Amino acid sequence: MDAFNEKSITKNTITRASSYLRVIKNLRSLGFVRVYSSNLADALGLTPAVVRKDFSALGLEGKKKGGYLIDDLIARLEDLLGAQKPRKTVVVGCGRIGRALIESQELRREGIQIVAGFDVAPPPPDEQGEVPIYHVDMLQSFVQKEGIKVGILAVPSHAALEMFQRMRLAGMRGFLNFTTVNLKCQEQCPHGCEEQCIIIQINIALKLENLFHMVHITEHHPELLRE
Amino acid sequence: MDAFNEKSITKNTITRASSYLRVIKNLRSLGFVRVYSSNLADALGLTPAVVRKDFSALGLEGKKKGGYLIDDLIARLEDLLGAQKPRKTVVVGCGRIGRALIESQELRREGIQIVAGFDVAPPPPDEQGEVPIYHVDMLQSFVQKEGIKVGILAVPSHAALEMFQRMRLAGMRGFLNFTTVNLKCQEQCPHGCEEQCIIIQINIALKLENLFHMVHITEHHPELLRE
Repeated sequence: MDAFNEKSITKNTITRASSYLRVIKNLRSLGFVRVYSSNLADALGLTPAVVRKDFSALGLEGKKKGGYLIDDLIARLEDLLGAQKPRKTVVVGCGRIGRALIESQELRREGIQIVAGFDVAPPPPDEQGEVPIYHVDMLQSFVQKEGIKVGILAVPSHAALEMFQRMRLAGMRGFLNFTTVNLKCQEQCPHGCEEQCIIIQINIALKLENLFHMVHITEHHPELLRE
Repeated sequence: MDAFNEKSITKNTITRASSYLRVIKNLRSLGFVRVYSSNLADALGLTPAVVRKDFSALGLEGKKKGGYLIDDLIARLEDLLGAQKPRKTVVVGCGRIGRALIESQELRREGIQIVAGFDVAPPPPDEQGEVPIYHVDMLQSFVQKEGIKVGILAVPSHAALEMFQRMRLAGMRGFLNFTTVNLKCQEQCPHGCEEQCIIIQINIALKLENLFHMVHITEHHPELLRE
């Protein structure tokens, strides 16, 4: 069964925990020693009750009126989230989007290491860049040897399901899905894997479609919008 | 004020309305004439009550036991969402991600027309592709002449805020933001624009970070996960 589905509190709690860690690190760099649930709530547009509930669910305790000690919180959130581990990932499908991600300086600056790309038609040796692009048949052995758990899927949609299954078989558990196929962790993997996996969909066409629709409603049916 | 904030029911209702339209069109192509709230709920992983509530909020009415007539629903959803209008957009920032989007066949197949790109350093005439890339100083006149309302922001983060403001000044109202900057529609635009705008953030680094965190918790702190 999928550990996190779109509606579960757990996935949202962990997503917020990543944000808490970012904000708290910023506060530490500004010289703060303590942080209150209301500080985090303000910074992230949440209510203090949500922050306290998350902290409680994550086993993070504070002093009633003294807030939370920042050094303590950072250490515990980093341990909980595995935030100090290297973030090594691979890109499967090295078309335009895949290559753009592989070459992205911005991802590197954010600490994401794309260590290899995989494609059905990898470029010849003299056209390889800094990050090697291998044939997809190399995926399983590479990923298992390097212990890669998170992958980016950027193949054409017709190849999405097959590549997703290959990535799962190779032991990958987290997927950033740029295809238009709505991938799901089946309850029972056809290959008998029992581990859960997590998929984040980035369907660019769908997001753009939503924007067109929302702008249209703003302009033509403003009466439907709530204040 | 922002018409849609992340928590408002309205934005989610419209996002779901886009999905309803997709599903209903598929059903029509399969020969269906009527659809029930439970059909849509099943297809999209929602509850029938949510579907009925959305339809009611959008002014779509059905017959109590007869469900909704598909042709009727499609006509009304398309009118509501402006779904038959051409979806013309531009990309601001033509680095690796921006160019990948401009050249994407997948977006074209989904009916998204990227009609121009803008960059501080556009390529010379002999290196231009099918979609022209102009200097950002041309943005305002182009967008106003073509009536473009939705734009894709893919500049380096340090330039995000300035370009966002230029796009708003040009009359754009919907933004797909690929930068790591968390853009907001200010309550009062510094240039006095009063119209609302809608921003969808696609922070790839943050999504990947979340995946690493979630996979780590699945593997190392499974006791925190709810079943």
